Amino acid sequence: MSVDSDRLTVAFLGPLGTYTHQAAYSKFGSTVQYHECATINDVFDAVSTGVVHAGVVPQENSIFGPVVETYDALRQPNVGFVRAEIVLEVQHCLLVPSGSKREDVRFIKSHEQALGQCRGFLEQNFPSATLEKCTSTAAAAQAVLRTPNSAAICSKICATVFEGLEVLFEGIQDRSANCTRFYVLSTTQDGVLWAEPTPTRCLVRLSGRPISDMLAALALPVSRLDRRPQLGSEVVFLDVYFAEVETGDLCTIEQALQRIEASGAKGQLTGLW
Amino acid sequence: MSVDSDRLTVAFLGPLGTYTHQAAYSKFGSTVQYHECATINDVFDAVSTGVVHAGVVPQENSIFGPVVETYDALRQPNVGFVRAEIVLEVQHCLLVPSGSKREDVRFIKSHEQALGQCRGFLEQNFPSATLEKCTSTAAAAQAVLRTPNSAAICSKICATVFEGLEVLFEGIQDRSANCTRFYVLSTTQDGVLWAEPTPTRCLVRLSGRPISDMLAALALPVSRLDRRPQLGSEVVFLDVYFAEVETGDLCTIEQALQRIEASGAKGQLTGLW
Repeated sequence: MSVDSDRLTVAFLGPLGTYTHQAAYSKFGSTVQYHECATINDVFDAVSTGVVHAGVVPQENSIFGPVVETYDALRQPNVGFVRAEIVLEVQHCLLVPSGSKREDVRFIKSHEQALGQCRGFLEQNFPSATLEKCTSTAAAAQAVLRTPNSAAICSKICATVFEGLEVLFEGIQDRSANCTRFYVLSTTQDGVLWAEPTPTRCLVRLSGRPISDMLAALALPVSRLDRRPQLGSEVVFLDVYFAEVETGDLCTIEQALQRIEASGAKGQLTGLW
Repeated sequence: MSVDSDRLTVAFLGPLGTYTHQAAYSKFGSTVQYHECATINDVFDAVSTGVVHAGVVPQENSIFGPVVETYDALRQPNVGFVRAEIVLEVQHCLLVPSGSKREDVRFIKSHEQALGQCRGFLEQNFPSATLEKCTSTAAAAQAVLRTPNSAAICSKICATVFEGLEVLFEGIQDRSANCTRFYVLSTTQDGVLWAEPTPTRCLVRLSGRPISDMLAALALPVSRLDRRPQLGSEVVFLDVYFAEVETGDLCTIEQALQRIEASGAKGQLTGLW
């Protein structure tokens, strides 16, 4: 796909009807051109190769925690730069082929995050159903149309987007307060693609020293800290950390990164918003 | 199951043939009585209710990262106390029903960690196969015996434990250096159940303040730090952190926990080994 220079193009974890689609739409509305991707990695690829101007990926859910695929992708160099966040309230539904009944359901399909968020509901209502992991909640909805005796956990909008599905249960997540937070990525740190207020937050990738030493050298307030195995290391149990730091001041950040380097660790700015 | 007072009983993530079983055996050998559990949560339940003396759960893999279920269980109060660690080198195999060929394989079953650890192999060799998540690698091996056209990613030992399976591929994990680390749990901190050297490390659960503040108050070297959503909170995006701290000195630890409390955060010792 080539970029239409007149219009902002935005990749998202598709297909149509995913929560990521809903999140992207809540930020960019109908003025941009959307580009569906099959996986979180494909969104990062579309952004880092310049096929699109921006990409939207889930970063964290308030019940199920950080999205591993997103942090794993962020371990790569030049994979995209976080430029904004979106928080969306999630209301999961159980969708079935029109006319199906509760007792027909033997397989329940969804993205692993959604399956995890509805664990309590599933154990109570469908203890013997087989859970099947799909690449997205909307892919699960589509798969249900092809699979007898199956149901999908997805957004209500899928009953409109995909013909032949209806809502059997609504609001089935384990806690009523269920929010998903998304990162909006652009190819590089530079370039004003959309209007944003003055940045107040950044994402820093840290490696090479114990995390207690690296946070001491950073010496800035950190609101989120996530650990993943270092990419491509043949030494086992070497980690990389992602710190969301509560400052958007580039001068302050650069001084902190110099302190990190001086301590013998590696620090790289991978987001500013 | 009641505890046989003459013998140490050890719960593990079963069934027979899992890597956790192999890890437990590497530590306790044939002198203890083993208690299979279907899920990681069941191991924690068996330990915390005193049904067994000890439990073994996977904590982290060097390619795929921390085991979310284990950290999620550790969020609960009095769920068990980490008393030791075990590191096991993992060699995944692809097992099929005896006589099956590569082209017969349409479904590949395993624990999600093992599926993740073999992602590269699967994409290259079985790009169109459906991946199915099971509760354990050994459960996947058993399921293959009941499901036509399926294969399991599991340990080689499963070809011996379960009749009718054979090894199609060996060493299929994405990196040759692939280790899994396990926690050994006991019901409480007290009581000498097995001989251990002087502790050198502890696990501390932290919540209530930004992580940068909590690590500054802790003021001890931290080698691993993991973030999970706080349990039972109706406020979204409140976190709990698990810090592996490089000291086994109880006095030092207690002073650090007092500093944590004084800073307005909560700190609890949940492991010492």
